[in-house]
Amino acid sequence: MPGLFWVVPAAGIVTVIFAIALARGVLKKDTGTPKMKEIGDIIFQGAWAFLKRQYTTIAIYSVAIGIVIGVLVAALGGTEVAGFSRVSIGWHTTVAFLVGALCSGVAGFIGMYVAVKSNVRCAAAAQRSLTEAVNVALRGGAVSGFLITALSLIGVTVIFFAYGGNNTPDISPQLIVGFGFGASFVALFAQLGGGIYTKAADVGADLVGKVEAGIPEDDPRNPAVIADLVGDNVGDCAGRGADLFESTAAENIGAMILGVGAYLVTHNLAWILFPLSVRAMGMFASMIGLFFVNAKEDKGAMAALNRGYFVAIGLSIVGLAIVVKYMLNDWWLFGAGLVGIIASVVIIWVTQYYTEAKYPPVKDIANASKTGPATNMIMGLAVGFETTFATAMIIGLALLVSYWMGTQADNSLAHMLGMQLNLGGAFGTAVATMGMLMTCPYVLSMDTFGPITDNANGINEMAGAGPEVRKITDRLDAVGNTTKALTKGYAMVSAGLAAFLLFEAYLDRVSFIKFGVVGQYKVVDIARIEVFVGALLSAMIVYLFASWAIKAVGRTAAKIIEEVRRQFREDPEILNPKDPNHPHMPDYRQAVDITTRAGLKEMIRPGLLPVLGPIVIGVIFRYLPGNYDAAMVVAAVLMVGTISGIMMASFMNNGGGAWDNAKKMIEDGQLLDDEGNVIGKKTDTHAAAVVGDTIGDPLKDTAGPSLHVLVKLLATITLVMAPLFIR
Amino acid sequence: MPGLFWVVPAAGIVTVIFAIALARGVLKKDTGTPKMKEIGDIIFQGAWAFLKRQYTTIAIYSVAIGIVIGVLVAALGGTEVAGFSRVSIGWHTTVAFLVGALCSGVAGFIGMYVAVKSNVRCAAAAQRSLTEAVNVALRGGAVSGFLITALSLIGVTVIFFAYGGNNTPDISPQLIVGFGFGASFVALFAQLGGGIYTKAADVGADLVGKVEAGIPEDDPRNPAVIADLVGDNVGDCAGRGADLFESTAAENIGAMILGVGAYLVTHNLAWILFPLSVRAMGMFASMIGLFFVNAKEDKGAMAALNRGYFVAIGLSIVGLAIVVKYMLNDWWLFGAGLVGIIASVVIIWVTQYYTEAKYPPVKDIANASKTGPATNMIMGLAVGFETTFATAMIIGLALLVSYWMGTQADNSLAHMLGMQLNLGGAFGTAVATMGMLMTCPYVLSMDTFGPITDNANGINEMAGAGPEVRKITDRLDAVGNTTKALTKGYAMVSAGLAAFLLFEAYLDRVSFIKFGVVGQYKVVDIARIEVFVGALLSAMIVYLFASWAIKAVGRTAAKIIEEVRRQFREDPEILNPKDPNHPHMPDYRQAVDITTRAGLKEMIRPGLLPVLGPIVIGVIFRYLPGNYDAAMVVAAVLMVGTISGIMMASFMNNGGGAWDNAKKMIEDGQLLDDEGNVIGKKTDTHAAAVVGDTIGDPLKDTAGPSLHVLVKLLATITLVMAPLFIR
Repeated sequence: MPGLFWVVPAAGIVTVIFAIALARGVLKKDTGTPKMKEIGDIIFQGAWAFLKRQYTTIAIYSVAIGIVIGVLVAALGGTEVAGFSRVSIGWHTTVAFLVGALCSGVAGFIGMYVAVKSNVRCAAAAQRSLTEAVNVALRGGAVSGFLITALSLIGVTVIFFAYGGNNTPDISPQLIVGFGFGASFVALFAQLGGGIYTKAADVGADLVGKVEAGIPEDDPRNPAVIADLVGDNVGDCAGRGADLFESTAAENIGAMILGVGAYLVTHNLAWILFPLSVRAMGMFASMIGLFFVNAKEDKGAMAALNRGYFVAIGLSIVGLAIVVKYMLNDWWLFGAGLVGIIASVVIIWVTQYYTEAKYPPVKDIANASKTGPATNMIMGLAVGFETTFATAMIIGLALLVSYWMGTQADNSLAHMLGMQLNLGGAFGTAVATMGMLMTCPYVLSMDTFGPITDNANGINEMAGAGPEVRKITDRLDAVGNTTKALTKGYAMVSAGLAAFLLFEAYLDRVSFIKFGVVGQYKVVDIARIEVFVGALLSAMIVYLFASWAIKAVGRTAAKIIEEVRRQFREDPEILNPKDPNHPHMPDYRQAVDITTRAGLKEMIRPGLLPVLGPIVIGVIFRYLPGNYDAAMVVAAVLMVGTISGIMMASFMNNGGGAWDNAKKMIEDGQLLDDEGNVIGKKTDTHAAAVVGDTIGDPLKDTAGPSLHVLVKLLATITLVMAPLFIR
Repeated sequence: MPGLFWVVPAAGIVTVIFAIALARGVLKKDTGTPKMKEIGDIIFQGAWAFLKRQYTTIAIYSVAIGIVIGVLVAALGGTEVAGFSRVSIGWHTTVAFLVGALCSGVAGFIGMYVAVKSNVRCAAAAQRSLTEAVNVALRGGAVSGFLITALSLIGVTVIFFAYGGNNTPDISPQLIVGFGFGASFVALFAQLGGGIYTKAADVGADLVGKVEAGIPEDDPRNPAVIADLVGDNVGDCAGRGADLFESTAAENIGAMILGVGAYLVTHNLAWILFPLSVRAMGMFASMIGLFFVNAKEDKGAMAALNRGYFVAIGLSIVGLAIVVKYMLNDWWLFGAGLVGIIASVVIIWVTQYYTEAKYPPVKDIANASKTGPATNMIMGLAVGFETTFATAMIIGLALLVSYWMGTQADNSLAHMLGMQLNLGGAFGTAVATMGMLMTCPYVLSMDTFGPITDNANGINEMAGAGPEVRKITDRLDAVGNTTKALTKGYAMVSAGLAAFLLFEAYLDRVSFIKFGVVGQYKVVDIARIEVFVGALLSAMIVYLFASWAIKAVGRTAAKIIEEVRRQFREDPEILNPKDPNHPHMPDYRQAVDITTRAGLKEMIRPGLLPVLGPIVIGVIFRYLPGNYDAAMVVAAVLMVGTISGIMMASFMNNGGGAWDNAKKMIEDGQLLDDEGNVIGKKTDTHAAAVVGDTIGDPLKDTAGPSLHVLVKLLATITLVMAPLFIR
């Protein structure tokens, strides 16, 4: 065992203790007035009910898929591996899949549970001071952020050693790929189901409430208002939690597979355990960064979050240097890791440029709203499309540079050790990915900050808090919007950066199954007809997936609209009470229940598309007569699907964020007409911006984030199913 | 010379005579009332002024680019070719480029000229009967459709023989690639400039006219109304004319390059001249098909057009069989051609499904309009994204099957001739593409039918024609919308089908420059880091191009809106005349002029992106230190750019068409509410659908059609510039 490996269990244990301490601190806070507590309880019950049903559905699919893949791998797996029969590989895969799925589900539950408990406490804290509200929201977010990443670290470590990591460290990474697949399988459905729920509730509540009935957002008379608040928790918290859980898990496993080659030459386990150790250092760095967040009343909350983030970044660099020095002893690989860390900072800057009101893109959309919803939409599309430039450049440059550093490391290590490790450039991209993911716990904490403050704002509105309190939660809500956008950018670029290591892991696995050794299957020739057609189909799958996800939101929203209209129709006193002191309350639970059922039904079709698509394509080309290389087709599906998915996600996440903040910019009175007068709320311009925001919602909160998961899922599914595609 | 080759000059001559006869027939028709004639003249002058300026700009760029590429090829060109020095290849390329550019420009002019002259005559004919109006519009459209395709056929033939096609038929196809590049270069700017003009005028006129001033579409009081009518001519006629001119030219040349291999083995020129002969047969088939169009008063005009189309299809199959039998003598290749013809029929059916009001997609969008512009937009996006499924399946299947037939032909010919031709499957896809393009003249005639009827409708509205006449032109206008959508689908799938033959031509050319023989450079390995990054960047270029094209429309529209507002402000009597018998006329020319200048300025940036993008990427990787294969990177740019471009175009063209017809469906009173009442014009639902239509406009008429050209341009530019990318 490499000397430095103790940081991994240490980080796991410390993080769990840290998270529990944070959670106790948050839960000790008061829950405000009885009215607030009541609202908080209703939200909790709604979220709980949704997650219970959602994960029941997902569990059934997971068990079925888990067994099917085990049987398929056992039946069709290629060469037997030293000491492992096909059947053994099959059940190892199934068990790993189910453990991964379970952990992913637990991660989602944790994310949601703590966030919901923090909402009402943040709302109460806002009645006292901004500082306290920031602290509650960030700590609540940190509980889930840290627990989820700890779970991923511990999960991968435990299953690696349970699958013989000590005795057969060259084989074990191949056996645990099921863990990543299980995690991404659950993450896709969690993100999709939650994303459909949250945006359907949002769109539905807005369209009938704001537009038809003319009541403000989060008004307690709106029967869908609780469903809307529940949605923020199940979509943003549970969904993103599962998303980043599987990101860290899948990329970790991919990087470990890439380390096997160097282990076989050096017999130094450090090459395989390196990714785990880097992430452990990242957890410490993130933890310390969190202590540096100290919001002052007079300064922006965003500045406080940024300070903590930069501390975490600085410490990550130090931690990376230590791990590289003591485990791999090559500064080129430190350089590669640094590239990943830099990429994470740059994407956050770029995301801010495209989604904050002080920069041109959001201003352009706000200005275009002056001529109505059509021009708002056209400009929003143009801005969203344009963001792909920065995304592609960051990913492309980071890949090229870290790959190049990987090849340099190969040379310098060969010189130093007197033997050729054959790391290859892809190992450089793996180190870069690990570097980027070091601050993941911190970023995830900032992300969960978003829905907590959003909900706190909603609870204060519903509970009739004064304008001073609302001003605080409104400010926090805007910061939360930004942090949510940042996390999406981070998740997207990390998916792109990880792409290459996951491709390489797939090719290595195909080579291993086909020839018994890695490195013999390297070429993915897109000039072959079947490979080109596979690439075309994978680009199409991204569009079709986005289409189905968006339609699912539309159909679910229609159900909610019907229900709200029904309630307004059957009891007019909900809207216009005869006795204002005893208003008729709408039936929130019924609205929550309808959204839950519709949302879960709608997640199945888009969810199965990226799971079955690559398998069907691969199997068809395997059995089609002719000289087709099905494994290569699947590689192209993975690669071009990754490119398409990232471009589409960049458009959707950033475009949606820009639309949202263009609306907020107008609401904040920052848009002026030609004579210098403020164009504010209740103008045609504002109405046009609201339309743009509504369109952006399913893009940025349903389809876009699901596309990250889709990209990772393509990687894990092809990795696990590789035996199926080899003739 | 192969015996059957006489059909090529015959088709060229007969087609020109036929087109002239048609033109004389159309021009002899009366131009209606003096008022109509006056409007027609203003439109003509506006279109003429725009085209003159546009082509002046394009000419300057073309000459500059033509010289630059000649110099670059002369300076950097690889191996010298038997009998041709580098300098000789350089100036051959420049001259071919300029001739191609000139022909493309002439094609655009012809398209516009005849269409504009036919507009007013169609409007006048509609005052007599539907049959006559259909005949005028279709014949007017046919003049440009046939002249343009004849020009392409004659142009390629002449330059091939001028460049030594008789003596060095194996070298000449390599020399004439500049012709295709010149054609697509001009086509891109023509389509972009025209597309920006037409949609900016449309959006601008609608936003100030319909929305702000509350006057109907095509109302003569609107200063931008003439600019709007001019736009249909310069965008749809001139733009699409140049687009399909370069399609047929580029794909023809690519197919000829692929035939060189078989020529070298058999010394039978038929392998190189085959593509020209197939297209000649297609021209006869299309001509005869046109005679079968006979619109009856009581039947739909679409049915009449469809009858002619199916006659053309049937005759094309016969013509294909004859050419295959007498030139290549292999029925597998007939099968490949048949695949292309079938693909052209299927895509037309699919396009109708997605864009006609009687099928679910358009109905879904119309229904979604009931809850406002946001849900209309969301559903439209979902429908547009979904269309990629059909597009990808058609292209993918057609490619696989025709490629497979190509390999079968290789085997059966080797058996029959006793020698291996090494045609390869790509030759099968080339024959399929040629099969698909056989009916191009007919399809292009149907396409130009669209803007002619659109303009006729506008002229009748402006000239105050009665409701009976308007009903006829309204019906024709709806048919025209459908035919325009069909042509876009056709152009898109033909771009996809041609992709593979153009890739192969590029790889052959790289091989030829690098090794002096074709077939030695075959692999495009996307698992190489630089190739993957190139693929990522090319997917991004498609998004960025779309973004810039859309923004250009927005900025140009803003200029028009300002101008219309200025005119309304400075002379209130334009809108509300004191003396209704002597209304103040708006200054149409000023609006046309402003649109012209803004549109031309805005076309430069998006136009240069796909021209310079691949060159910059290729040159950087050529000179970057390290083991990068720049020629392979460019191949990936071409291939993944093609995939991305086609997917995006499918979304934009079909989504835009569906939005347009959802609005028309509501205007036609086909949408009912829950109680079964008609939801018609002037409802909130209609307003929402109008917003959707406005958003779809720049997608379907600017960015979408330009993307076809972009895809072809990527192919021709990489083909010509190949010497630059070889280390």
